[in-house]
Amino acid sequence: MKETKDNMMNVNPPKGTKDLTPELAIAFKEMICKIEEVYQEFGFDPIYTPIIEYWDTLKGKYGEEAENKEIWRFKLPQSDKWYALRYDHTVPLARYMAKHQPKLPFKRYVIDRVYRHDRPQKGRYREFWQADIDTVGSVYPESDAEIINAIAKALKSIGLKDFTIRLSDRRALENLISQLGYKDKFLEITRIIDKWDKIGEEGVANELRNIVDNPDKIINRLKEESEEYYPEDFWKILDLVEDKKLVKVDIKLARGFDYYTGMIFEVGVKNFGSSIGGGGRYDNLIGIFLGKEVPAVGGSIGVSRLFDYMLEKNLIKLEKKTYVEVGVIYVSKDVFDKAWKIANELRSVGFRTYIDLMRRDFKKQIEYSV
Amino acid sequence: MKETKDNMMNVNPPKGTKDLTPELAIAFKEMICKIEEVYQEFGFDPIYTPIIEYWDTLKGKYGEEAENKEIWRFKLPQSDKWYALRYDHTVPLARYMAKHQPKLPFKRYVIDRVYRHDRPQKGRYREFWQADIDTVGSVYPESDAEIINAIAKALKSIGLKDFTIRLSDRRALENLISQLGYKDKFLEITRIIDKWDKIGEEGVANELRNIVDNPDKIINRLKEESEEYYPEDFWKILDLVEDKKLVKVDIKLARGFDYYTGMIFEVGVKNFGSSIGGGGRYDNLIGIFLGKEVPAVGGSIGVSRLFDYMLEKNLIKLEKKTYVEVGVIYVSKDVFDKAWKIANELRSVGFRTYIDLMRRDFKKQIEYSV
Repeated sequence: MKETKDNMMNVNPPKGTKDLTPELAIAFKEMICKIEEVYQEFGFDPIYTPIIEYWDTLKGKYGEEAENKEIWRFKLPQSDKWYALRYDHTVPLARYMAKHQPKLPFKRYVIDRVYRHDRPQKGRYREFWQADIDTVGSVYPESDAEIINAIAKALKSIGLKDFTIRLSDRRALENLISQLGYKDKFLEITRIIDKWDKIGEEGVANELRNIVDNPDKIINRLKEESEEYYPEDFWKILDLVEDKKLVKVDIKLARGFDYYTGMIFEVGVKNFGSSIGGGGRYDNLIGIFLGKEVPAVGGSIGVSRLFDYMLEKNLIKLEKKTYVEVGVIYVSKDVFDKAWKIANELRSVGFRTYIDLMRRDFKKQIEYSV
Repeated sequence: MKETKDNMMNVNPPKGTKDLTPELAIAFKEMICKIEEVYQEFGFDPIYTPIIEYWDTLKGKYGEEAENKEIWRFKLPQSDKWYALRYDHTVPLARYMAKHQPKLPFKRYVIDRVYRHDRPQKGRYREFWQADIDTVGSVYPESDAEIINAIAKALKSIGLKDFTIRLSDRRALENLISQLGYKDKFLEITRIIDKWDKIGEEGVANELRNIVDNPDKIINRLKEESEEYYPEDFWKILDLVEDKKLVKVDIKLARGFDYYTGMIFEVGVKNFGSSIGGGGRYDNLIGIFLGKEVPAVGGSIGVSRLFDYMLEKNLIKLEKKTYVEVGVIYVSKDVFDKAWKIANELRSVGFRTYIDLMRRDFKKQIEYSV
């Protein structure tokens, strides 16, 4: 082997992205496959949209901070167009609805990559996978409940235990804030409340102080856990949720994205900083593309982050290092051609078959295969 | 429904990319799944690498034209790094090998997206899927033959008929060109010969005239179909190919990429402009990353293009418009909650179950479900 060290290159994938080795890839595919099966059980069908979108398609949908810091957007040297890598699966779905105008309700799933140029840290990638389901066309609480049930069942199907679903409704938060006379600052206030888990009550109060006179009034109302702010529909959703003991109603839940209009939820696990799923109702987003309002509700599992969690907690074991089931070992090189034919025969009847390609001797072949 | 036409947006995915509706997505997934099964049968395991790579990782690997015109490379407004979207699965594999240094031989498959900023036209996308297998670590012809056998079997498994595999060897072309005294212009000449199918004999002759005195000498030798230029190993590959009647040895085959060093092949179908697969041996590429030379051979099926071809020729029928198997119809809204429970029961025993979410009456539910 000739040494060519002079030409050695950086061998890392970009910061915030990662390679999966075969044993990880096999476990990851298995996890995704189980989630997909549950989504199909609930009557969702797959679609594909590209990873690249025109920047105009994503612009103005995620709030200022996401746009300025997190979105991967770019021009190529050979083109004048602004492109972006998709930030989630929801806005591409909205564009899809306008382009293809399928029969309603339209229920689709997608388990695929999204991109956020976040500061890389534990549980946060710049390229990661999300497993989304969305129902477009129904205003009724049964469509909200179905999303929650499917997500919960999908998480159970992969062996996740001890997760909780925080559930709320943007309309409840809006009622509360309106009653206090801050309706015109609803989105700003929401974005601050959204940080409650990260910066705590005091942090929220401090940030609120910059935009309202009396932040404590908001904080106290939020902590009351009153049911009065919720619309009737909301309780019907809860009523149709299959496993109610998973759910905790929490008006402090805000969800960052601007596009939510009704029910919102977030899935959390113990001793893990960030949520591993969430979603909600967004009745105005599709209208931006379609030219007429169409209601929609959806949810997402952060499968890359969840995969890390499951590995860390030993809920996924990397047992299978290969899909190979059979190895054909040849005792001497003279019989290689026969062994080759046997390997192909075994494949023809469906066995995943390995045959040595290195002309190793008998002993070494056995060593390699164990 | 409120009209909001003023805000209507472009609803198309970027030029050269496309959405797959559920019926297309279901058929596409089925096709990919069959290919994957055959790859697994031959002992290949999956890995994942990111779609984004550092530009430095891809730079200098594909030839000038690809670099200047076709590669998606970019900076973000918020970062100084040059990134690129992967152009194929081979260079990312080379980087992977250097980073993870797995036991050899390393046999992996990947069925995933790649990006080329080509002029969009029939069969050419800017985002498309390739189904690759590669064996890293073996110099022996059995590893070359295994790639060809797996690709051929995968294509048969999805119902493709009438395809041919043009087979050659870069060393044969190098011998021929060296014998004529043009060894120093090998890569340039190869790139011109590579266009034979597109620009014809005369076109090749014209382009060759710019760099050699006597292009006809090269053309005539290429047309002789002589076996003399091929090394002995090459014939052993052919010997181990399972279905020899698919194969046509053709020294005019050049394959564009600079990194090939030995056997090369290309899969073609009748009445379709472009090839639907190909590959070859590249014994120097991995060394650029790893710092020591490691032999490798691989092949790829252009699954997006192939999917179009199969649809066009009616080899894939879009029979399944949904994965849904059962619909629960409720005769009146009073029994909805019961119907809901039944739907969840059916899901629990594995049926893909649909229940109306639109509060439609009995008749309309039936209309929608057929």
